[in-house]
Amino acid sequence: MKAAVLDHGRMVLRDDVAEPVPAQNQVLVQVKACGICGSDLHFAKHGRRMLELGAEMTSGGITSAGLALGLDLDRDVFMGHEFAAEVLEVGPDTESPLGPGSLVTSIPILFGPGGIEPIVYSNTTIGGYAERMLLSSFMLLAVPNGLDASRAALTEPMAVGLHAVNKSNIGPGEAAVVLGCGPVGLSVIAALRMKGVGHILAADFSPARRDLAQRLGAHQTVDPREETAWAAWARSGRGGSAVIFEAIGVPGIINDIMRSAPGGSRVVVVGVCMEADTFTPFFGISKELNMQFVLGYEPAEFAESLRAIAEGDIDVAPLVTAEVGLDQVGWAFDALGDPEQHCKIVVTP
Amino acid sequence: MKAAVLDHGRMVLRDDVAEPVPAQNQVLVQVKACGICGSDLHFAKHGRRMLELGAEMTSGGITSAGLALGLDLDRDVFMGHEFAAEVLEVGPDTESPLGPGSLVTSIPILFGPGGIEPIVYSNTTIGGYAERMLLSSFMLLAVPNGLDASRAALTEPMAVGLHAVNKSNIGPGEAAVVLGCGPVGLSVIAALRMKGVGHILAADFSPARRDLAQRLGAHQTVDPREETAWAAWARSGRGGSAVIFEAIGVPGIINDIMRSAPGGSRVVVVGVCMEADTFTPFFGISKELNMQFVLGYEPAEFAESLRAIAEGDIDVAPLVTAEVGLDQVGWAFDALGDPEQHCKIVVTP
Repeated sequence: MKAAVLDHGRMVLRDDVAEPVPAQNQVLVQVKACGICGSDLHFAKHGRRMLELGAEMTSGGITSAGLALGLDLDRDVFMGHEFAAEVLEVGPDTESPLGPGSLVTSIPILFGPGGIEPIVYSNTTIGGYAERMLLSSFMLLAVPNGLDASRAALTEPMAVGLHAVNKSNIGPGEAAVVLGCGPVGLSVIAALRMKGVGHILAADFSPARRDLAQRLGAHQTVDPREETAWAAWARSGRGGSAVIFEAIGVPGIINDIMRSAPGGSRVVVVGVCMEADTFTPFFGISKELNMQFVLGYEPAEFAESLRAIAEGDIDVAPLVTAEVGLDQVGWAFDALGDPEQHCKIVVTP
Repeated sequence: MKAAVLDHGRMVLRDDVAEPVPAQNQVLVQVKACGICGSDLHFAKHGRRMLELGAEMTSGGITSAGLALGLDLDRDVFMGHEFAAEVLEVGPDTESPLGPGSLVTSIPILFGPGGIEPIVYSNTTIGGYAERMLLSSFMLLAVPNGLDASRAALTEPMAVGLHAVNKSNIGPGEAAVVLGCGPVGLSVIAALRMKGVGHILAADFSPARRDLAQRLGAHQTVDPREETAWAAWARSGRGGSAVIFEAIGVPGIINDIMRSAPGGSRVVVVGVCMEADTFTPFFGISKELNMQFVLGYEPAEFAESLRAIAEGDIDVAPLVTAEVGLDQVGWAFDALGDPEQHCKIVVTP
């Protein structure tokens, strides 16, 4: 069958990938839609460094970051973890309440005879950039309300924003500053709005992204070339501390925030910066900042995200700027570099 | 009168300092004891950089860090913010429940006709390294239970530890790792023990400091030359996430913690690193770490600290390794560089 795979930093199409066969407690599914995640672009570019950093950590985090220590970048890497799919076949001796024909999604984790593997980056476990893949029967969630596969595939990225917002412990009376309106920042904005946060200030250089930020619920947007987020924050009359979401993920931004944020602010780092970074602890100390790093989501947050999309609490349709076939995944990885043209590209194998 | 002042990085004795005169709502006090704080050593060495960093911050923090923007390092700087003193004279038209002869302490903030000034680093407001100084009458706390001035002077540094522990939201069922057993780390340990935290692991290279850590309440101590705090943590059988107090304040330590800490840990940064530092956001993200920077204390925490010392909940006596006169403050600043010899030196003018 066909799959788009990572081959030395580039996404290429293979047409000779071995057909996956469901084991017990697995189902074979036909991928209907799979969103391209910014972390896949990161991995294509910085995969070796990510594996090195993962190996450096002496405890925790490796599995949760989706990094299998045995991953070999000189072999094809399967990716694609934002998927919606149709059940084709249920594995042997497996009870699945969702049988053939059901449209489903799932947290990207596969339980198999050999153990647990994240469906994120793998030489063996096929992800959503493929015609077919395996899922764990007991992890399946039915896509409700006739929601189409393309929007259902956005359950995963929207769960990331929901998790970041939950970890921030923001209350409805507090106000948020979201720095960066890529897919992660936008999912944070949607979750903030869903939680009833009264003021959401969003900053991005791109007019298209600022427009999306408003459509997803930002009350105020700012172009940092014209006015800093902090000046806009002061102008908004909210004053005092803020709950700040860092969704940019480039070196220097954390120190910028520490230098400029109002005292007592909470900073939620949801942008993934793969490089070593420089910061000034004295800024954090002088202002008693709190910095919460976040990753992923809980199963309940994933389910809540699907519910919110299916019931119209979050309208993800504006995020999807293109749908492409498996043969265009390489093109899509490049195209996502331009924030004016694209936000979320969905692969429809 | 006499005072020890900072003169281009060195503490020197002056005998011609103008006698302070109390204004309304102020009292003149005779300093009985004033602890030398590590932040004073930092300021003597890095004062210019601290002022630069303070000026770089576009909002908040400057006053709370005790940095007056107008401070001139080419003039004498008064310091000394851990004091106990005897009231000599009450200012004009001032009602003070604590009259002449009372032993008092106070948060180091002076309210004057010209506004509020921290009694931390100043060209004009005299601190505790002097024969006499001014305090705000309405900020005075009586030193109870016959507590001597030397121990009462440690109210302030112990309040720093109490504040850090409060900001960590640590529960009695959680366990703490304290990195660095200087006065700040030791005050954290004392506060953790007072809060009933069930397991306190403390790390320091110095045997004398590890001994002090045990006297103040650490259940387990480790010499990082022999075993990392993380290996000792694993050996303690507690497992899982930890509440980690960074009380070292040198470049690199925050990244070391991020690399090695158990996933989901909370890191409280109470050590003051005055230099730019390098860290790896990916470590924090992969482990969903939380980093709380802390500074100072609340008035209630200061009062609670005095109560705890006076009632014997915290025994600060072992911390005091020397008492010196005003003429020996320069010597004491140098001597505090050796953790085997000294922990807290108290100036008794």
